[in-house]
Amino acid sequence: MEKFEPRDETFCARVTESFGRQPFVNFIGAELTRVEPGAVDIALPFRGELAQQHCYVHGGVITAIADAAAGYAAMTLAAPGFGVLTTELKVNFLRPAGQGRLEARGRVVKPGRSLTVCQTDVVEIGASGESHVLTGLVTMIFMEGLDD
Amino acid sequence: MEKFEPRDETFCARVTESFGRQPFVNFIGAELTRVEPGAVDIALPFRGELAQQHCYVHGGVITAIADAAAGYAAMTLAAPGFGVLTTELKVNFLRPAGQGRLEARGRVVKPGRSLTVCQTDVVEIGASGESHVLTGLVTMIFMEGLDD
Amino acid sequence: MEKFEPRDETFCARVTESFGRQPFVNFIGAELTRVEPGAVDIALPFRGELAQQHCYVHGGVITAIADAAAGYAAMTLAAPGFGVLTTELKVNFLRPAGQGRLEARGRVVKPGRSLTVCQTDVVEIGASGESHVLTGLVTMIFMEGLDD
Amino acid sequence: MEKFEPRDETFCARVTESFGRQPFVNFIGAELTRVEPGAVDIALPFRGELAQQHCYVHGGVITAIADAAAGYAAMTLAAPGFGVLTTELKVNFLRPAGQGRLEARGRVVKPGRSLTVCQTDVVEIGASGESHVLTGLVTMIFMEGLDD
Repeated sequence: MEKFEPRDETFCARVTESFGRQPFVNFIGAELTRVEPGAVDIALPFRGELAQQHCYVHGGVITAIADAAAGYAAMTLAAPGFGVLTTELKVNFLRPAGQGRLEARGRVVKPGRSLTVCQTDVVEIGASGESHVLTGLVTMIFMEGLDD
Repeated sequence: MEKFEPRDETFCARVTESFGRQPFVNFIGAELTRVEPGAVDIALPFRGELAQQHCYVHGGVITAIADAAAGYAAMTLAAPGFGVLTTELKVNFLRPAGQGRLEARGRVVKPGRSLTVCQTDVVEIGASGESHVLTGLVTMIFMEGLDD
Repeated sequence: MEKFEPRDETFCARVTESFGRQPFVNFIGAELTRVEPGAVDIALPFRGELAQQHCYVHGGVITAIADAAAGYAAMTLAAPGFGVLTTELKVNFLRPAGQGRLEARGRVVKPGRSLTVCQTDVVEIGASGESHVLTGLVTMIFMEGLDD
Repeated sequence: MEKFEPRDETFCARVTESFGRQPFVNFIGAELTRVEPGAVDIALPFRGELAQQHCYVHGGVITAIADAAAGYAAMTLAAPGFGVLTTELKVNFLRPAGQGRLEARGRVVKPGRSLTVCQTDVVEIGASGESHVLTGLVTMIFMEGLDD
């Protein structure tokens, strides 16, 4: 992975505070587990409410944490005064996610002044190791004056 | 829109019952509002828990109903004994979704024996009319023996 | 389809001249067949050089005209002095393209000051009518000072 | 990168012969430079005919080699008697490609009996090193009875 230089020294506090203010990620029980320049991990323990009809975690939930990890990875590289929005995302579901703990890993591939492209992967961590559940690409846009 | 012939006469009951058994879509308060061959609509009233940090509806929630509408649109064309899974999805966020009612519209573009491609759009319906919030493409796969 | 207002009266000349200067689209024999605000069509007659190993048109060629139609559709709405670049594209291949004439139809879904989202579809027009070959979504970015 | 076990010992000959029979990849001057289980590289020297109007390599060309590298990476894992088709692809353009040599690197992320998901990246190799031009995700489908 490439090394990135944050444009705002307070990037870690910005990400952590913003995450704490997101009703939805708290509603589903997601937790921030890594915040580095260009890299953010989010963990999600299994809960029955997050399932679809086959008792796997709902694809929308998996996508939500994949998107959030990518968005916060981009935010670690935002300049002061610039917020982040997702403009588009594309995900491939590789395997169903059962009842293990999920971890979404957002990584900046190409930072930009306006657009930042991130890769995002979700793994399920169970008794027998890691299973690759989702891989995706997300484009984030930096907007001046947008709150974190 | 093209006219599609369902392969299973009970398609409407299948979709309705499957939707009723999905913990996550019920958790967020989504409702099925249209079920026709190749076309499913899902409505979602605003709730504070579904927001991200700027008080807009979280992109993951919007994506979840977009995905569900596409998946159920595909299910209306499933043969008896075949269930549906999302293999990949791609969405573009066009405008933020405020506090109006959201409607996700899944439409089959190309049905297949194995893969079915759907278009999915989400609009926000407010006092001043409709606003186009998301457009996307989703590929569903039919799996023999998979429950609805 | 929505009605769009061009920001530059000379949009048709801009698109036509730019298309004429593109070595690659001329190399493969593509032709511009429609230029309206928010809508551009490109036609491509079959040639053996454009095939993949099963004698169908190569997916890369189909994608190239799909991308070009979307990009020029966006250019019809560009302000004076702004050029257009593709930032990302996503296509689903619906059916193989045989030896008929292809037509790519780019349509603006959501114009923006910076990013413009387009839908793009490719059909094959043969003796027995139209066959839907590709559907896709493309994000274009307007860049000040970029030549057409 | 994960280690993959080919299902067909002749995978390298299959890929090489198929590549040699593709009119379009030969038309643009692409060359196969690596064939391993789950990994294929394709090189493309610059030629003026491949440019768009700003003298960068046309996005359709870059996408074509990205798609081909992913497709052949999947083919290295195909069972005897199964051919490969692209069902969908998504690419992000990270930087323009100038007049250096391009290299497309297709890597299998998740092999499957029916669908195989690949990551694909294109770099430009110039005097000053590598520049990351494109990243993408491609879904391939194995079809029984389809020629390579």
